[in-house]
Amino acid sequence: MNFRQKLNFIVVKNSSLLCVGLDSDIEKIPEHLQKEHYPQFSFNKVIIDATHDLVCAYKPNIAFYEAGGLSGIKQLFKTCEYIKTNYPDVVLIVDAKRADIGTTNVGYVRFIFDELGADAVTLHPYLGQEALQPFLEREDKMCIVLCRTSNPGAGEFQDLMVGDEPLYLHVARRVSKEWNKKDNCMLVVGATYPEELAKIRAIVGDMTLLVPGVGAQGGDVEKTIKAGKNSKGAGMIINSSRGIIFASNGEDFAQKARSEAERLQMEINKYR
Amino acid sequence: MNFRQKLNFIVVKNSSLLCVGLDSDIEKIPEHLQKEHYPQFSFNKVIIDATHDLVCAYKPNIAFYEAGGLSGIKQLFKTCEYIKTNYPDVVLIVDAKRADIGTTNVGYVRFIFDELGADAVTLHPYLGQEALQPFLEREDKMCIVLCRTSNPGAGEFQDLMVGDEPLYLHVARRVSKEWNKKDNCMLVVGATYPEELAKIRAIVGDMTLLVPGVGAQGGDVEKTIKAGKNSKGAGMIINSSRGIIFASNGEDFAQKARSEAERLQMEINKYR
Repeated sequence: MNFRQKLNFIVVKNSSLLCVGLDSDIEKIPEHLQKEHYPQFSFNKVIIDATHDLVCAYKPNIAFYEAGGLSGIKQLFKTCEYIKTNYPDVVLIVDAKRADIGTTNVGYVRFIFDELGADAVTLHPYLGQEALQPFLEREDKMCIVLCRTSNPGAGEFQDLMVGDEPLYLHVARRVSKEWNKKDNCMLVVGATYPEELAKIRAIVGDMTLLVPGVGAQGGDVEKTIKAGKNSKGAGMIINSSRGIIFASNGEDFAQKARSEAERLQMEINKYR
Repeated sequence: MNFRQKLNFIVVKNSSLLCVGLDSDIEKIPEHLQKEHYPQFSFNKVIIDATHDLVCAYKPNIAFYEAGGLSGIKQLFKTCEYIKTNYPDVVLIVDAKRADIGTTNVGYVRFIFDELGADAVTLHPYLGQEALQPFLEREDKMCIVLCRTSNPGAGEFQDLMVGDEPLYLHVARRVSKEWNKKDNCMLVVGATYPEELAKIRAIVGDMTLLVPGVGAQGGDVEKTIKAGKNSKGAGMIINSSRGIIFASNGEDFAQKARSEAERLQMEINKYR
């Protein structure tokens, strides 16, 4: 089963476009877990068990694990393994934001798709299609290319006018029309920019978009769905990280994470 | 001692602008090392011992270590530790090509600067200065931003015209004039594009450039130095990876790597 089939199945099964971002910052996880041997993994396990029937995907961001050196990276491996073993229907996106020149990317492909077993990876566009070929060749996986990011300063380069359109629309056009030969490309578009999201949707047809930035970053769910959904009322994976996993930092963190995931799942479905 | 002082010292001490890229692909290291418990680290140790007095910097690319999963990443840690312990004067650049939104970059900063102990890191520009602030705040370290990369398809976005200049020159201008407030920014410019290198030099003043692409990728040393040197006959760190470390794959790999490093060091100095 390739990424697209896997995503379509879980979106229907769990009636959800919600992705939970496992940005499990060691400094923010509940105090009673800090004494565990693998505190980030222990935390993730509980969050995953509490939310797996409400989501279509999990998205650990590598930075929060690399911060802890080898021990942190080991906890990323254990987290990926846990998802694949216990909830094999749920899509696993590794948010690694990688991209190097061609031959070097072979190493990243092995790490992310084969070692970690991810279904999808996030990628920087700056080096171009030719460089990313080792990723793009993997028909079974998904390449999610940064297009319009959710950060306040995203426009510094992304909004530069190239002819009569900004760079991010040029990226959207290239990726959707040229890079996507194996139907294995998506784009990252921040929920914090609904107008830009609508312009991207107008270019890319029914392509699926990964949309971070609702929740802690302040993106509005109704505006996001209305601007970003495709002709089938789907075509989006909507990510919330801190807003769900750190909904509480007490002993009730799992219940609070579940409540918040459920609330967001339903809010998303309301506007589809 | 910050990066700049460290670099100036070693460039004079070793009379070298050469950086050896430790792209120690497990499949390419000599067969007699494959049986070692840590083959990549064993290989790197020998290469480093054989070349440390000929270089100003070492640059391991993370992809070649992540390809081996946890064991590979452990060998990256051991390699960085070995350089810092035995050759503390030599600059350590970790070629990680990272960039995420602001708070997330804190994790990468910890991993690369504090856990691995790198003096410098390579970064993607696409998310802008605001996102990269956690890197840019580190006055003791160096942020090396991708500008014009060495790969054949680099121009897909980098050559797009923004007003009357291509995107890569716009990146060069922003990084050198706006991002470099703490004098801790450099740019990556491929040796495979000497004309572009000259245009970048004209914009950035005496800023140091990291220049990959001589050796296996085919960049010409004379053209590269003439196009890229600054007003002091320096201002470049010139990287060769495969051309040096895989000069031989037999038992004589260390001597061959040393000969090739020495030849390239001298060729670079000839044209400065």
